[in-house]
Amino acid sequence: MKYLIIGGVAGGATVAARLRRMDEQAEIILFERGAYVSYANCGLPYYIGDTITQRDNLFVQTAQGFTARFNIDIRTKQEVVAIQPQGKTVLVKNLVTNETYSEVYDKLVLSPGAEPIRPRVDGISGNRIFTLRNVPDTDTIKGYINTIKPKRALVIGGGFIGLEMAENLHELGIEVGVIEMANQVMAPLDYSMAAIVHHHMVENNVSLYLGDGVASFKETENGVAVVLASGKELETDMVILSIGVRPETLLAKEAGLALGKLGGIEVNEYMQTSDPDIYALGDAVEVTHLVTGSKALIPLAGPANKQGRIVADNIVYGNKKVYEGSIGTSIAKIFHLTVAAAGANSKLLAKEGIPYHESFTHSGSHAGYYPGALSLSIKILFAPKTGKLLGAQVVGFDGVDKRIEMLAQVIRNNGTVYDLMELEHAYAPPYSSAKDPVNMAGFVAENILTGKVKTAQWRDIEGLSKEALIVDVRTREEFALGSIPGSVNIPVDELRSRLPELPLDKDIVVTCAVGLRGYVAYRILVQNGYERVRNLSGGYKTWSLARI
Amino acid sequence: MKYLIIGGVAGGATVAARLRRMDEQAEIILFERGAYVSYANCGLPYYIGDTITQRDNLFVQTAQGFTARFNIDIRTKQEVVAIQPQGKTVLVKNLVTNETYSEVYDKLVLSPGAEPIRPRVDGISGNRIFTLRNVPDTDTIKGYINTIKPKRALVIGGGFIGLEMAENLHELGIEVGVIEMANQVMAPLDYSMAAIVHHHMVENNVSLYLGDGVASFKETENGVAVVLASGKELETDMVILSIGVRPETLLAKEAGLALGKLGGIEVNEYMQTSDPDIYALGDAVEVTHLVTGSKALIPLAGPANKQGRIVADNIVYGNKKVYEGSIGTSIAKIFHLTVAAAGANSKLLAKEGIPYHESFTHSGSHAGYYPGALSLSIKILFAPKTGKLLGAQVVGFDGVDKRIEMLAQVIRNNGTVYDLMELEHAYAPPYSSAKDPVNMAGFVAENILTGKVKTAQWRDIEGLSKEALIVDVRTREEFALGSIPGSVNIPVDELRSRLPELPLDKDIVVTCAVGLRGYVAYRILVQNGYERVRNLSGGYKTWSLARI
Ligand SMILES: Cc1cc2nc3c(=O)[nH]c(=O)nc-3n(C[C@H](O)[C@H](O)[C@H](O)COP(=O)(O)OP(=O)(O)OC[C@H]3O[C@@H](n4cnc5c(N)ncnc54)[C@H](O)[C@@H]3O)c2cc1C
Ligand SMILES: Cc1cc2nc3c(=O)[nH]c(=O)nc-3n(C[C@H](O)[C@H](O)[C@H](O)COP(=O)(O)OP(=O)(O)OC[C@H]3O[C@@H](n4cnc5c(N)ncnc54)[C@H](O)[C@@H]3O)c2cc1C
Ligand SMILES: CC(C)(COP(=O)(O)OP(=O)(O)OC[C@H]1O[C@@H](n2cnc3c(N)ncnc32)[C@H](O)[C@@H]1OP(=O)(O)O)[C@@H](O)C(=O)NCCC(=O)NCCS
Ligand SMILES: CC(C)(COP(=O)(O)OP(=O)(O)OC[C@H]1O[C@@H](n2cnc3c(N)ncnc32)[C@H](O)[C@@H]1OP(=O)(O)O)[C@@H](O)C(=O)NCCC(=O)NCCS
Repeated sequence: MKYLIIGGVAGGATVAARLRRMDEQAEIILFERGAYVSYANCGLPYYIGDTITQRDNLFVQTAQGFTARFNIDIRTKQEVVAIQPQGKTVLVKNLVTNETYSEVYDKLVLSPGAEPIRPRVDGISGNRIFTLRNVPDTDTIKGYINTIKPKRALVIGGGFIGLEMAENLHELGIEVGVIEMANQVMAPLDYSMAAIVHHHMVENNVSLYLGDGVASFKETENGVAVVLASGKELETDMVILSIGVRPETLLAKEAGLALGKLGGIEVNEYMQTSDPDIYALGDAVEVTHLVTGSKALIPLAGPANKQGRIVADNIVYGNKKVYEGSIGTSIAKIFHLTVAAAGANSKLLAKEGIPYHESFTHSGSHAGYYPGALSLSIKILFAPKTGKLLGAQVVGFDGVDKRIEMLAQVIRNNGTVYDLMELEHAYAPPYSSAKDPVNMAGFVAENILTGKVKTAQWRDIEGLSKEALIVDVRTREEFALGSIPGSVNIPVDELRSRLPELPLDKDIVVTCAVGLRGYVAYRILVQNGYERVRNLSGGYKTWSLARI
Repeated sequence: MKYLIIGGVAGGATVAARLRRMDEQAEIILFERGAYVSYANCGLPYYIGDTITQRDNLFVQTAQGFTARFNIDIRTKQEVVAIQPQGKTVLVKNLVTNETYSEVYDKLVLSPGAEPIRPRVDGISGNRIFTLRNVPDTDTIKGYINTIKPKRALVIGGGFIGLEMAENLHELGIEVGVIEMANQVMAPLDYSMAAIVHHHMVENNVSLYLGDGVASFKETENGVAVVLASGKELETDMVILSIGVRPETLLAKEAGLALGKLGGIEVNEYMQTSDPDIYALGDAVEVTHLVTGSKALIPLAGPANKQGRIVADNIVYGNKKVYEGSIGTSIAKIFHLTVAAAGANSKLLAKEGIPYHESFTHSGSHAGYYPGALSLSIKILFAPKTGKLLGAQVVGFDGVDKRIEMLAQVIRNNGTVYDLMELEHAYAPPYSSAKDPVNMAGFVAENILTGKVKTAQWRDIEGLSKEALIVDVRTREEFALGSIPGSVNIPVDELRSRLPELPLDKDIVVTCAVGLRGYVAYRILVQNGYERVRNLSGGYKTWSLARI
């Protein structure tokens, strides 16, 4: 058997390794147009920022090492320039000699990845404007920084690569700004959760330019000016362009392979393209989003690696292994914050016309009485009738990764908020509370679904009628430190005795720090005949974060 | 409605709070024989060790605060001394006045907890011998330490409370030893995983006396001598007795409530005792172990809290909420290590006659190229035919809590090792690898189940025939640092060319650092005609840790 693989990093290298383990006798050739295989794309920003100090550490395997271990014919600096499915042949160009030759295959694997999007605006090809995908890009950026010693940088695009770059450039002492066309960074989050990130970035002296896109770039005397759609001009010494990636599909398209609506290569559940002898995986393919059922592009290393093993097995043993799809579980470190999401957010659900409830909770990362507990915020989205968990977002300083795993697994299993309540978590004071924040998110959601509480969202506050009463049930001390304009303060522990102060016939929104005491107050009020009460989800914390 | 609750901490206080939220009008009386309610039992060792510096922090709620918030009649220092189910009455003794009185109930809740076991050996009542359950115990121990300034302490029992105490006493500068009757600490772990803990404790200057029980205590001139079953005598200044807890069931028993075989109160899935008007929860009850299907005692705060909410709802709304049972998910910090387990371990599976495979993997806590990755060890146990995940144990320095949550949820959902492979984890370099250690455990198990590899366990090495070959496929440098006696070194990357050195007709065990390269070597060998090969599960690491 002869297997050809196009692309030598996350997807391609994984297929190659598993293929060899499963088939010691096969001929396996891996083509990589770059000079390196098997490197840590995800580590590149951290090498630029000197968190990873050894360049060598970026290479999980070298071409040599790979060949020695797996007896694979690795052809770096060789680009596959055409696929001829009828002849089961690929055309390869040796980028060093410029020679072209062909190789036949029994099975072909495409893992060409995705390339950074470069918008067609004036000045885009300036030599102070960088994108980051691979090791040469990294060397270029690092070389520029070491030689030119830029003082200022602008990152365009507030996705995870952009924000990782913002942090890493900041670590090098460079003054950083982030420009983002949307009104928020980190698209997988909803606005209110992204707001926590905004605050944190500003606290870390990163300037944020939200809701403004790049119109053009202009060379200036001292650097480059970024002209924004709003007309604003920002001068800087370097630009990192990270507005997203686009599947590399030219080869596939020219070979007549079917592409999906989103522009990725179409594959079936076995990761097989429209040509049964060609498999494809990684950033280049469309997969099923397991919450919406629609197709999605999920350019992440975890899926690429997992698909790799499935592709290899299906090639060797026949189509038996299924890649079900993805819920887009993702995570990023942004300065001291960790930001994670899984499933669908409100934008996606709205787009797909899927109805949902949402709920905010803020908890300690572990038991409050044990030192070091830090604030952890969870937003969940769930189906109104069944309670099916549709999406989850977690932002905080510690234990965020754990909570997104707990939530992601429930989403992935088509679980519900009731399952969140029952998760039997591992509890000792340094790690959690007797009720984990994830359990708590479940309790709160159950109370909403079973009508134990009605909630208001932070967006609702603005639209309240003049008649409506906002009752803040925190202590006097907390209230004095800041409150929703127009709210009155009745500490929850005094509420029972102060009911006469509250009219029965008005809309009332109760609020507290995070929603817990508001909920207790809600329960007291409704059982005392108040019918028009709502509790502010996420309390003053969510409201105040999202509002600024 | 009139609800009485016995016990005012994890279970009782939770029932009380939820009862009030659900039923504002009910009369709720909570009896607690101690002076405090709602305190953090789990924080007590850390207060003794000065990690928690404020005693006040131990109180999640005070009796006063609780009353103000929840309008609950809290009666501390009042012990319920009898239950009369026929009359729906309890007899209460006021421990301050010594008066006895009765209260009737519509529904009664029992959350009396469990008491530390005190073996009947000579000298057990000496005043240097302490148990730790509640705040007064804590005050006594802390007072003793502050006054007497002991230099030496012995902890009897290597469960999580014992080891937490060992660590905390050590933090105070006290020289600590741990005595444990079994040949290992942390009973939820299997021996090879507990071995990691043994090493770590010894590294932290804690003396371990394993496989030896206490025969008696003797007062000595300078302290107390602990006489062991082996005859050994150890002198010390104080003893912490933590050999386990026993459900407090006297009240229930005398009231004629059914007890289970393990000595806990019998409850149905609604947490209802044999008397339909009496519910029970927490450490005092027997629950279903969801892996074995048998009854179990799971004296942990998470289950108590979750049961509390279920009990309250079933009382107010009728029996609708079910407590399915537990898989005993638990975790403990032991110096710098975190130790966690869920499901069944090999002892329990053997006892229940449930067949299982086991597999060890050692991974980095996150991507190796990102600084700070630390060793993380996972043992999983799974069903030979279906791959059903039966148990998991994780020991390491970072990210252990996350991995046990990922594994626990699969166990809880009756999932398999195949599910582990598919877990879509959140990956960025500071948090994980493109294949998470939990995915990796799944891959390895799948290879075992599908016959891609045959494994040997560390215990098998001793029993190998003289003829058998142990082939260590690590590098020469690694091999030189220590290896299994009698093994020969053929680095995996040389294996293909050195096959002639290996006889086809002998038993071969391949081994490497953790099992990965051994597996690659295995695949090369079997596909080259070697039929009698096995790969050592967990490699040299598991073998060397478990052997010492
Ligand atoms: C800076 C950065 C940070 C990232 N951080 C994370 C992270 O934290 N977490 C995460 O999950 N993901 C992260 N990713 C994404 C992750 O790296 C990708 O999802 C993953 O590498 C995709 O694997 P792939 O095999 O599809 O493509 P790639 O890994 O990009 O490999 C494709 C390879 O194919 C080669 N190729 C393309 N066409 C041809 C051809 N015709 N002939 C020969 N060779 C060809 C390319 O040169 C390339 O090397 C990050 C990506 C970047 C760029
Ligand atoms: C030192 C220590 C550390 C721990 N650490 C952890 C940990 O890290 N993680 C974890 O999950 N679990 C831990 N636990 C266990 C956890 O605290 C218990 O599982 C949990 O408290 C059980 O709740 P419960 O309501 O059943 O009993 P308890 O919380 O013990 O409450 C029972 C209460 O009932 C009272 N009572 C009993 N009988 C009567 C009566 N007749 N009349 C009036 N009152 C009565 C008792 O005085 C007691 O206060 C720890 C326990 C201890 C002691
Ligand atoms: C590393 C790379 C070459 C793939 O190699 P790989 O051999 O499949 O992956 P690993 O080295 O992680 O090893 C995994 C294999 O070892 C096995 N294994 C791991 N630990 C083991 C243990 N303790 N005992 C036995 N086997 C073990 C696994 O089962 C798996 O084998 P399988 O797929 O045949 O079941 C490829 O993933 C790569 O190039 N990665 C870097 C690029 C990248 O992913 N970039 C994006 C993220 S930064
Ligand atoms: C604290 C204690 C009194 C129980 O009180 P509780 O009110 O049930 O628990 P919490 O304070 O955690 O609050 C949980 C409630 O607030 C709600 N809540 C939490 N966060 C919320 C938010 N942001 N918005 C709205 N509601 C929220 C939850 O839904 C839950 O209410 P529910 O059960 O009616 O659904 C009791 O658990 C206790 O005494 N604990 C200490 C003892 C102990 O557990 N020891 C062992 C561990 S150390």
